[in-house]
Amino acid sequence: MTETRPTHYQQLVNPFVPAEVLAAEQVELIHRSALGVLEDLGMRVLLPEARRLLAEAGAVVDDDSMMVTVDRGLVQSALDTAPAVYDGYGGVPERTVTFGGEHVVFAPVGGPPYVSDRERGRRTGTIEAFEDLMRLAQSFDVLHIHSPSVEPQDVDPAFRHYRTGRAQLVLSDKMPFFFGRGPAQIADAFEMVRLVRGLTEEEFAANPYVYTVVNTNSPRQLDVPMAQAIIDFARAGQIVMVTPFTLAGAMAPVSLAGALVQQHAEALMGITLGQVVRSGAPVVYGGFTSNVDMRSGAPAFGTPEYVKAAIASGQLARHIGLPFRSSNVNASNAPDAQSAYESMMSSWGALMGGANVLMHAAGWLEGGLVASLEKYIIDVETLQTFAEAFQPVDTSEAELAIDAMQEVGPGGHYFGAAHTMERYATAFYDPVVSDWSNHGQWIEAGSPITAEHATRVWKQVLDGFEPPPIDAARVEALDDFIARRTEEGGAPPLTT
Amino acid sequence: MTETRPTHYQQLVNPFVPAEVLAAEQVELIHRSALGVLEDLGMRVLLPEARRLLAEAGAVVDDDSMMVTVDRGLVQSALDTAPAVYDGYGGVPERTVTFGGEHVVFAPVGGPPYVSDRERGRRTGTIEAFEDLMRLAQSFDVLHIHSPSVEPQDVDPAFRHYRTGRAQLVLSDKMPFFFGRGPAQIADAFEMVRLVRGLTEEEFAANPYVYTVVNTNSPRQLDVPMAQAIIDFARAGQIVMVTPFTLAGAMAPVSLAGALVQQHAEALMGITLGQVVRSGAPVVYGGFTSNVDMRSGAPAFGTPEYVKAAIASGQLARHIGLPFRSSNVNASNAPDAQSAYESMMSSWGALMGGANVLMHAAGWLEGGLVASLEKYIIDVETLQTFAEAFQPVDTSEAELAIDAMQEVGPGGHYFGAAHTMERYATAFYDPVVSDWSNHGQWIEAGSPITAEHATRVWKQVLDGFEPPPIDAARVEALDDFIARRTEEGGAPPLTT
Repeated sequence: MTETRPTHYQQLVNPFVPAEVLAAEQVELIHRSALGVLEDLGMRVLLPEARRLLAEAGAVVDDDSMMVTVDRGLVQSALDTAPAVYDGYGGVPERTVTFGGEHVVFAPVGGPPYVSDRERGRRTGTIEAFEDLMRLAQSFDVLHIHSPSVEPQDVDPAFRHYRTGRAQLVLSDKMPFFFGRGPAQIADAFEMVRLVRGLTEEEFAANPYVYTVVNTNSPRQLDVPMAQAIIDFARAGQIVMVTPFTLAGAMAPVSLAGALVQQHAEALMGITLGQVVRSGAPVVYGGFTSNVDMRSGAPAFGTPEYVKAAIASGQLARHIGLPFRSSNVNASNAPDAQSAYESMMSSWGALMGGANVLMHAAGWLEGGLVASLEKYIIDVETLQTFAEAFQPVDTSEAELAIDAMQEVGPGGHYFGAAHTMERYATAFYDPVVSDWSNHGQWIEAGSPITAEHATRVWKQVLDGFEPPPIDAARVEALDDFIARRTEEGGAPPLTT
Repeated sequence: MTETRPTHYQQLVNPFVPAEVLAAEQVELIHRSALGVLEDLGMRVLLPEARRLLAEAGAVVDDDSMMVTVDRGLVQSALDTAPAVYDGYGGVPERTVTFGGEHVVFAPVGGPPYVSDRERGRRTGTIEAFEDLMRLAQSFDVLHIHSPSVEPQDVDPAFRHYRTGRAQLVLSDKMPFFFGRGPAQIADAFEMVRLVRGLTEEEFAANPYVYTVVNTNSPRQLDVPMAQAIIDFARAGQIVMVTPFTLAGAMAPVSLAGALVQQHAEALMGITLGQVVRSGAPVVYGGFTSNVDMRSGAPAFGTPEYVKAAIASGQLARHIGLPFRSSNVNASNAPDAQSAYESMMSSWGALMGGANVLMHAAGWLEGGLVASLEKYIIDVETLQTFAEAFQPVDTSEAELAIDAMQEVGPGGHYFGAAHTMERYATAFYDPVVSDWSNHGQWIEAGSPITAEHATRVWKQVLDGFEPPPIDAARVEALDDFIARRTEEGGAPPLTT
């Protein structure tokens, strides 16, 4: 084929009306129950500054027990100021993404301690693996923003954010992610972004250029680095995705409704803290409710409970008027059929539930312990399939093809029809990894399973990788900054 | 766990509002275009009796070219009499299924010439394999009716329907499927059903007890056995699923809109023939539109084009007020990740598109050339996941779990909470084949991939199979009938 199919993988819009598993009164009941939890039971907030800010806004704080209760009026004021839709910026205009509304943003796997591929096996995350994952993320338009990728444990934690920041900002022009590991690291991160994007402090503060995810310590606790991250990111006008990690039966009630009440309450507390810090700060409502295997306590993903929780969470997010973040997750140990069907259950549940951000969209395996390069490529295939399925059906006269039907008589075929010849090169989505060869060809090729094709693809992509053009002076400024900060001793992470 | 989780896999209802890819005016445009195709271009109908019946109803017939055109008035009369919702019956009340409305019926793989499993490899279909597939279908409540399973090529075609009929009716109490391979075979099939179900001819004619699928010979042709099947099943008041096999780029226009127009036109012709034969005969609108790989001409499934076609077909079916049949299909050569994600794309597209019947719901592989026992088990897992996800979320006070949140303090866990202890044994869906063990346990177990677990499961199910209790006198009557008909020479299939 000589022509190239035009793709529409950037700035995605999900055309489907969100699915619902809760009646309107059930949404309102869960919302009211969560408000009641915050008023009556409250949350433990470990960071004194966070307690002080909330107290100043009207929360009731007990500094001995560190318990904070907030009334529904304060929560509602926060929801009134949190924006429903806003843009986030990368290094070039094509990388601008919209959070909220009918927009969908895909971010690859983030956070695993291990990385794996079929050539080198399962191993501890390194900065080299992190950089390769940046190259993959940059190479596929269907991945819109970065994520923390794999944890590069060969780099000292005090300097790790320089390496991961540089990799995100120099190997890619997509919006970066930084962990909230204390004010010093966050300040470094913001400065690195400003240097590479060429932004003044005022320009940076006026729009989102970077984001983080804050997982509450379910049940009902917000630890020091997490509360600090909400404060620092909100203050800078950067995006915080507040995502309680509410596994039903473990860190949340065993009932789906109970887990959702707790998720909602914890998310509302994080969102409220952010708006208290800076009214109008961009925030995302994160849902991560799933269940555990009650035999072992192990987390399960892509379950029917996960599907319902994702759809319900979307309803709750729309109820409070915020963008909704969900995830493409599975609990399989290999990029096999289970990893695919659990991932698809999660992704379809999330996207039919109106998710605006799909995290871990490519590469997550083993319940999040591993970033798998093969799973990454397999997921890119399914993400592109979603992106294509989101495009409208053209019913113009030429596409209705009545002339072609007249040309091709009963019992004939369309392979050589004029209508086909005009369109065949670009008519259909061209897969990345799916193998459509027949049985004979497949046997001849050595009976490759999907993961084997995926190995070939990630190797090709990495071999052919070209970083985006980035102003050399800015990269130099970044490197000077990193050198100076490294000399100063870096920024050890803040812990609990 | 001692308690058993109550399941709701029979008489399934899909609670989701069907998704849409076409605006209302696009649905009407495709419908009108299809009516125009039937009026202006028509279809070739190879069976003289079918042409005669259509002519008597007002169609314009040219017996030389065998071309039949029908005007929109005749089509509309047929749509006025075809029922929107009706029940189909198995051997016991629990096997009653409803076609149409919000009801969903799952039928396993049907039609492949080959069968495969990890122990015996890929081989030609046999009656033994057919019988094993009946046992599997009977063993899972989430499979509601039968399908033609694998083609048992070790049985002479003139006697094959006796063996497949007996297997369906004696190893199972679910609604059987029979191919439309000529009036003699169909008459035999109906008699076998009556004998085992203990029905008079009048009782049988009053309600659906058996079904068939008619694939038009796209483009725009209806061959002899297919037209005959529509006539014979409709006359007997039994179900016909009219399903054009419209692969865009091969047997249908390369454009999605064009393929849908052709699918709709061909389906309307089949439906019209059925209603001309017997007003009110139960019919299902089948959609099978997918695309081909334009490099090789091979059919592709689970593509974005398939997803959109499935959703659009649901809209077209609801537009004409008929139950909608779609399929769980993939083009992979192995029960690997590709087979799973393509299957999930197909199934989610179908079910979000409001499919009332999901054919090939379990076991289809290799674009329909193979019935895979491993894929069968993997699909049962996903079907059960759908069935569970279809159940409502309980938001009663006890499920909201506020007391449990009070009991479990911040930073604690719910494993030992009273609320958890009361519910843990039955709280969550218990998977058939998903492996949630951690990496260490998984390595210790020999790193099994999903297909290996599936092998274990189908063997267990077959080993423990018990046929349903069926009146011995009825089975004897069936066997007497088969013996007599065999002696008479059976019923050679009708061909084109």
